[in-house]
Amino acid sequence: MIKRQLKAVDIFSEDEIRQIHQATLTILEKNGIEVFHEQGRAILEKHGARVEGVKVFFPPELVEEQLQKAPAAFTLHARNPENSVEIGGSGTVLAPGYGSPFVMDLEEGRRRNSTFEDYVAFTRLSGASENIDVVGGVLVEPNDIPDHLRHAKMFHAAVKHTDKCLMGSALGAKKARDCVEMAAIVFGGIDYVREHPVMVSLINTNSPLQLDQRMLEAMMVYAEFKQPVVIASLSMTGTTAPQTLAAALVQQNAEILAGITLAQLASPGTPVIYGSASSVIDLKTGGLAIGSPETAKMFAGTAQLARFYNLPSRGGGALTDSLLPDAQSGYESMLNFMGAVQSGFNFILHAAGLLENYMSMSYEKFIIDDEICGLVKNFFQGIPVDEEHIALETIMHVGSGGNYLAEDHTFRHMRDLREPLVSSRKGYTGAGKLPDTAHRAREVYREVLAAYEAPPLDPKVEAELVKYMEKL
Amino acid sequence: MIKRQLKAVDIFSEDEIRQIHQATLTILEKNGIEVFHEQGRAILEKHGARVEGVKVFFPPELVEEQLQKAPAAFTLHARNPENSVEIGGSGTVLAPGYGSPFVMDLEEGRRRNSTFEDYVAFTRLSGASENIDVVGGVLVEPNDIPDHLRHAKMFHAAVKHTDKCLMGSALGAKKARDCVEMAAIVFGGIDYVREHPVMVSLINTNSPLQLDQRMLEAMMVYAEFKQPVVIASLSMTGTTAPQTLAAALVQQNAEILAGITLAQLASPGTPVIYGSASSVIDLKTGGLAIGSPETAKMFAGTAQLARFYNLPSRGGGALTDSLLPDAQSGYESMLNFMGAVQSGFNFILHAAGLLENYMSMSYEKFIIDDEICGLVKNFFQGIPVDEEHIALETIMHVGSGGNYLAEDHTFRHMRDLREPLVSSRKGYTGAGKLPDTAHRAREVYREVLAAYEAPPLDPKVEAELVKYMEKL
Repeated sequence: MIKRQLKAVDIFSEDEIRQIHQATLTILEKNGIEVFHEQGRAILEKHGARVEGVKVFFPPELVEEQLQKAPAAFTLHARNPENSVEIGGSGTVLAPGYGSPFVMDLEEGRRRNSTFEDYVAFTRLSGASENIDVVGGVLVEPNDIPDHLRHAKMFHAAVKHTDKCLMGSALGAKKARDCVEMAAIVFGGIDYVREHPVMVSLINTNSPLQLDQRMLEAMMVYAEFKQPVVIASLSMTGTTAPQTLAAALVQQNAEILAGITLAQLASPGTPVIYGSASSVIDLKTGGLAIGSPETAKMFAGTAQLARFYNLPSRGGGALTDSLLPDAQSGYESMLNFMGAVQSGFNFILHAAGLLENYMSMSYEKFIIDDEICGLVKNFFQGIPVDEEHIALETIMHVGSGGNYLAEDHTFRHMRDLREPLVSSRKGYTGAGKLPDTAHRAREVYREVLAAYEAPPLDPKVEAELVKYMEKL
Repeated sequence: MIKRQLKAVDIFSEDEIRQIHQATLTILEKNGIEVFHEQGRAILEKHGARVEGVKVFFPPELVEEQLQKAPAAFTLHARNPENSVEIGGSGTVLAPGYGSPFVMDLEEGRRRNSTFEDYVAFTRLSGASENIDVVGGVLVEPNDIPDHLRHAKMFHAAVKHTDKCLMGSALGAKKARDCVEMAAIVFGGIDYVREHPVMVSLINTNSPLQLDQRMLEAMMVYAEFKQPVVIASLSMTGTTAPQTLAAALVQQNAEILAGITLAQLASPGTPVIYGSASSVIDLKTGGLAIGSPETAKMFAGTAQLARFYNLPSRGGGALTDSLLPDAQSGYESMLNFMGAVQSGFNFILHAAGLLENYMSMSYEKFIIDDEICGLVKNFFQGIPVDEEHIALETIMHVGSGGNYLAEDHTFRHMRDLREPLVSSRKGYTGAGKLPDTAHRAREVYREVLAAYEAPPLDPKVEAELVKYMEKL
C-alpha cells in the first residue's frame, strides 16, 4: 500500500472537468446505454429512466443523485486484520497483473499457456511481496482447470497461500455467489460478509455504451451483499472509443456512471470504485499501445474524474507493450505506474508482472515491478521535516569542509535509505559478464518462492472450503 | 523542450519550506560559508557581510535582497533563433549527460576512456534529437585532447555540428573568457553577447559550505557579461551532506544562496539557475545511489525551493545506478526524469546517455533516454478539451455497440499518437529471437549518426573560430 504525502496531480482544469461531465450527462440522456440485463432495466425504469428495448435513457438528476450514495472510501478486510486496507483518500492499494492467458519465459523469450501451478506461484509471490495488498484475482488464467471450477480454485488458492485481501469472480451470478459463500466460510459467516467488504470484483462495461449481462449479474450479487465492485470501462481509442482522449473519457464516463447508478439503485451505499482499463490503439498496426503516454494521460483523466465524483478510483499499473523484461519494459512500466500514483488512483490493478500489454505474466517482470512499486511508494512518502531532520546543530558542528561520516546524526538515520530488490547496487562485485536486471530478477523470484511460507489457515476453514468446491 | 500543462508537484508544505529557508539563513549568518576567492570576499564585505579569514557570514537581509535581483525567467539564444528557449516558468529545457570520463559499450558491458570522437558523436546525436535543446557541455570528457584546449574544442564542435543552445566552461577565468570570446564570434560581436544570454555554465559549490576558487573565477567572468550560470550543490548524504534529506537541502540551500548573493552583488540581474546534482550515498558500499527514490525526492525539494525564491531551477535527469541499458536503467531513469519534470525543473542536465551514475555515457542509453524524454514530454502536454476533442456528435453517431474505425473524427486525429523511437511496437515481426531495447537502440543510434547532417555554419565564423583556437 502506498500512502501518498504529495497531492494528486490534476490533468484537467475545473472547467474542463465540468465540460466532460456535461457531455457525459448528454450522452446518458440522449443516446442512452444498452443494458443487457432485464432486472437492471426494470430497476432503472422504476426510478425514472426511460427504457426502449434494451436501451436505457438516464435523466441527469437520477445519475447525480445516485452518485451521492456511494461511499468516498471504505475498508477492505483481510482474514489477517493487519492486512486490511482503506480504499480511498490518499492511499493506493496494489494488486498484481490480472487476466493474462500466457506466461513468459526469459530464456525462450515468448509465451506459453499459463496453468494453475503458475497461478499458485504468482499468488505466493504476491504473498511475499511487501507492496502487493490484494490477491485472488485472475493473476494468470489457470488454463488447465475446467471453467466451472476456476473461480473457486483461484479463491481457495488465494486464501490458502496468503492472508491478504481478496478478489471475487465477475463471471455471472453463479460464480459470484460461490465467491460470497466461500468468503462466508473464511470470515466466519455470511452476516460478517454482509457488514464488511471482504473482496473486490471487476465489473467491466462493453464499449461503446453497453452494459453486459454476465457482468451485471455478478454485480447484482455483490451489491446484494454490499461487496465492493470496480466498475470499469476498457475502451480502446479509434475502435471502441473515439480517437481523441477527451472524447474517450466522456464515453467511458457515461458507461461507468450508468453502472454506478444501477448499483446504487439496486443496493444503496454499495462501495463502488470508479475504474478504467482503457487505452489507445496504434492504428498503424491495430495493436494496443498501452505503454504509451496517451494511456498514462487517459488514466490521469480517469483518476481526476473519480475525484470530481468523490469516489475511489482504479486504473494504471506497471504496463508495457514490451515483449521482454528489458529497458522499454522498465521505462514504460514506471511511466504508467508512477503516472497512476501521481494521478491519485486508490486501487492499481496490474501493479506487477505483465508483459506484452495484457497478454502475458512474467516471473522476472513481477520482481522488477515489485521493485518499481517500492521505489514509487518511497518517492510519494515525501520528506520528513522537523528539528531532528533539519539537523541545524549537526550542520553547524560539521561546518565548512567537514565530513558527516562519523556524526551521530548519520548513524541515527543511515538505515533510512531504501534497500533495493534487484538493483545492481546489490551484490555486484565488478568481475565477469554482468547479469542484466531480468537475470537478477530470475534469481530473486526463485529465492522468494523457495523461502516463502504461507501464513497458517484454520484447518476447519480449509476443510470447509474443500468441501464447498467438491459440490461444484 | 517540455512545456508542462500540469502543475508542478510540491513535496513540502508552505510551512515546511519556510522552516528550511529559516534554517538556511541561520547557517549563512552563524556558521557562514568559506569563500575561496579574494575579490568575492571583498565584494561581500563591502555590502555588509562579516568576513573572518576565508569565512563569510551573511546577514539575512543581504541574502533576501540579492535574491530579488535575479530574473525569474530568461531566454537562452541559439545561433538558429528557432532553437532559442525560455528558461523558467512551466518549461523544461533539456541537455544531455555531462562530465563522464568513460563511454560504455553494449557488447563488452563496461567502460573505456572517452575521446573527442565520442564527444562529436554525442554532439551529433544531440543535434538530431527532437528533445535535446542545449549542447556544448562536457557530453563526455575528450580525454585525448590536451586540457588547455578541451573547452575550446568542445565549444567549437557544438557550434559546428548543431545550431542549438550552448554551454560554456566553468573551469576558471581563462577558459570562461575563451568561451565568451568564441561566442562573440558566433553571435556577431561582444555587444550582442553582453545583451543576450547565449550560453549556460555550471558553477558548482564545494560541499559542505564552501565556494571554490576556480568556479567563482568563471562565475565572475560570466556575471560580467550577464551570461546565465547554474549555481548548484553536488553534496552527498552521509559524507558531504547530512544524512537526512531535509538537512541536506538546508545545507545545499545555504551554498546556493551564498553563490547567488555573490553573483548578484558582482553584477545585478545576472540570470542564475538554482541548481542541484546532490544525491544519496549507500553507506553499505559507499557508492552513489543516484537511481534511488531518495535522490528523486531531494530533487523535488530543490525544485520547490527554487520556486519559493522565484528562480529558474536545475536538477534531475535520466539517472541510474545500473551498469547496463537494462530494465533497471529504464525504470530508474524514468523515475528520476519524470520526477524532475513533475517537480517543475526548468533545466534538466543529464537528460540522456548516462549509465553507472555519472561514470559513463552509453550510445544505446542516449537513444533510450531520448525516448524517455519524448514520452514524458507528451505526458505533461496534457489532454486538449474542446468541442472537436469532446466529439459529442461522433459519440452519438457511433452509438451503443458501434465502431469508430471508419469515422471521419478518427481519421482527423489518428496521427495524434506519439510515434515511438525504440518501442517493440515499431518493426517487430513476431519471428525469431527478440532484440531487447538496448540492441534496438544500437541500430537506431547508428542510423541517426549515418543520416545526420549538421546545419550550415557561415564559413567566416568557422574560420575565425579555428583561428581563435590556434592561439590557445
